[in-house]
Amino acid sequence: MDVNRQRLRRDIEENAAFGATDAESGRGRTVLAGTEANREARDRFVDHCADAGLEVSVDAVGNVAATWVPENADPEAAPVATGSHLDSVPEGGIFDGPLGVYGALEAVRTLQETNLKGSLERPITVVSFTEEEGTRFGGGMFGSSVATGRRSVDDALAATDDEGIAVEDALESIGYRGEGALDAGAWDAFLELHIEQDTRLEERGIPVGIVTTITGITHATAEFVGEANHAGATGMDERTDALAAASEFVLDVESAGREHADAGEGTAVATVGKSRVRPNATNVVPGTVELGVDVRDVEYDTMETILEDATTTLERLEAERGVETGFEREIDVEPAPMDRRCRDALEQAGAEAGIDTVELHSGAAHDAMRVSRVTDAGMLFAPSRDGLSHTPLEWTDWEDCATATQVLAGALAELAGADEG
Amino acid sequence: MDVNRQRLRRDIEENAAFGATDAESGRGRTVLAGTEANREARDRFVDHCADAGLEVSVDAVGNVAATWVPENADPEAAPVATGSHLDSVPEGGIFDGPLGVYGALEAVRTLQETNLKGSLERPITVVSFTEEEGTRFGGGMFGSSVATGRRSVDDALAATDDEGIAVEDALESIGYRGEGALDAGAWDAFLELHIEQDTRLEERGIPVGIVTTITGITHATAEFVGEANHAGATGMDERTDALAAASEFVLDVESAGREHADAGEGTAVATVGKSRVRPNATNVVPGTVELGVDVRDVEYDTMETILEDATTTLERLEAERGVETGFEREIDVEPAPMDRRCRDALEQAGAEAGIDTVELHSGAAHDAMRVSRVTDAGMLFAPSRDGLSHTPLEWTDWEDCATATQVLAGALAELAGADEG
Repeated sequence: MDVNRQRLRRDIEENAAFGATDAESGRGRTVLAGTEANREARDRFVDHCADAGLEVSVDAVGNVAATWVPENADPEAAPVATGSHLDSVPEGGIFDGPLGVYGALEAVRTLQETNLKGSLERPITVVSFTEEEGTRFGGGMFGSSVATGRRSVDDALAATDDEGIAVEDALESIGYRGEGALDAGAWDAFLELHIEQDTRLEERGIPVGIVTTITGITHATAEFVGEANHAGATGMDERTDALAAASEFVLDVESAGREHADAGEGTAVATVGKSRVRPNATNVVPGTVELGVDVRDVEYDTMETILEDATTTLERLEAERGVETGFEREIDVEPAPMDRRCRDALEQAGAEAGIDTVELHSGAAHDAMRVSRVTDAGMLFAPSRDGLSHTPLEWTDWEDCATATQVLAGALAELAGADEG
Repeated sequence: MDVNRQRLRRDIEENAAFGATDAESGRGRTVLAGTEANREARDRFVDHCADAGLEVSVDAVGNVAATWVPENADPEAAPVATGSHLDSVPEGGIFDGPLGVYGALEAVRTLQETNLKGSLERPITVVSFTEEEGTRFGGGMFGSSVATGRRSVDDALAATDDEGIAVEDALESIGYRGEGALDAGAWDAFLELHIEQDTRLEERGIPVGIVTTITGITHATAEFVGEANHAGATGMDERTDALAAASEFVLDVESAGREHADAGEGTAVATVGKSRVRPNATNVVPGTVELGVDVRDVEYDTMETILEDATTTLERLEAERGVETGFEREIDVEPAPMDRRCRDALEQAGAEAGIDTVELHSGAAHDAMRVSRVTDAGMLFAPSRDGLSHTPLEWTDWEDCATATQVLAGALAELAGADEG
């Protein structure tokens, strides 16, 4: 059983043409949900699924599911599903999402061409979720949130972009406002192939990573209120400088992240990625600062401890610097361990194909995170050159794409009940 | 010799109506150079000057000079000048600038009504400089820069606002594009009355401050280049976080300012007022940060030392954190000591009127800073409630306005050669 590397490459390169951007180096694309580029990418995907004999359905929020019922499978059996997303961030790369969608389709086509297919007992469904990146309509993991019942269809359809255009109208305009909601809970299992977005595979020279846990994520906003004042006329001892207070906080968050990464297995991360200073003029002592804080780990307790450390710092800064502070969590998602059965299937598929695999965690969120709440889910990673993603410089060698797809195909066969060798 | 408090208040309140803004509390105005509100303010000022018998002239960049020649004065003698500006920042207060313009006019009217006037040997010129705040055409101290030869008329007229409108056209449209350049170097001396914008007078209960030195100012941009990366997928030991590096810099600049303020007379200040983070998303490790740094002191050597400390911090951060850094000075102005003769005249005028005065420095820049480079200059401050300025909450009691104007009138008489009592 060998995947067709050329066919996989052709599909990903064809897809890369939709929404392609001019990039100084690398290959970029901008494919936001509900845009013309997104329509083209979806149409091509649907065509390829139909060509492979899959039955395509589109749900109310534009999630596409394409199902193959192997000749001896029970069409009513809970299917094994696999897939990812076709949307991108603005000026993103060509692999983040499409590798998982076209890798899934290629895995199915490969199984169709082997004599394993006679022993498959369950249908296999290839999925493309709507707007995983959350760039246009916000939130992220949009389609998989609906497919897992976390978000209602009505609520999702009513979401609007910055220009007030609703999801419903955007999908209608590109012909992908279908009916009902895809039900991930009805799947027997789900596997997602994705690029790693980190350098662990590249550094070890291993082509496939099997995800143990997707870290939990907390996003919070820390606010510091001091007193805006003339930078010349206000003496050093007369100030309540919100930016100086916020700077101590940034460094404390970094220290807490380092400390917990060192204490554990290096999976904890704590970041201040966003800062808004007001009035933000060189000659005015900053009056207000808002910071965006991102905390992740495979252990929710560790995340909690880092967040407690952060609030302790805020209390200290209130006492020492006289600022008022606030701390609000906007996103708070627990870690998502991948299912043992799915991990075993991936590991076994690697071993049977003679492909090295390694276990690692995912620090990035993926649709599999949502799906893992309603059925058994697993993920596998292909190497990312220099760990880059969300940039035209994002790159995964075609050979690595094919190798990971090979492991995916083997694991799907295992989960769908193929007889061994 | 007593100033007419009601007349001064009427003038400042009339002026406050031009460009008046709705403020929740306090009294705000927005009077940018070359706007309709600025035309109204200028017209009213010119009318009041003419009513007082002053001869009005307007130079090419809209500086207004109104001269009174006392009956026994030599009309050819170098005049004593006094004034400030009528423009404001957006939603600024009603005293910053106008107190110095109308205080100057009221001082002249007061001298006209006393029997001192027969002994005045020099003309007295009341001045309103164009765009001290620099809000519309940039730079600040715009009109006084031309009047002191620091900037050529042609260069100044060609400056444009954000919409590409040139100073020349803006002034033409409001009827204040005159001829030639006001020549501050031809003045015997210059006095500027201004609100303090700090709390030193208020705290000590003293109505008039005599400025010793206007601090020098350096504005610089510090740049930190790290590596933008996924906040989840990039481990703590794989990062080059530009915001964490910048945060150390903010704290070091604050420490250097405090240290030098403590070591000297508390006049040194060092501020990071502006921050720009890229890409500025909560889930991305910051790749680049630019900080706006403001350093001031009455001693240029101290400013230099603080700036050297800042560059030492940058070198340390390059070594310890692997960021690349840059440091560029955009503004670098030496401190401007006020002239001894002007300070003595102000002190003596206070003593003769039985008004308490105190010496203090100015941490804010003023037109007098420019004028001090070409002739003897002095400044006096009236108290600012809570030290606030550039806000509708800016306030100076009417009694304090009159008291400071009284001292200004006395000092003008002294400088213009009045016989003592």
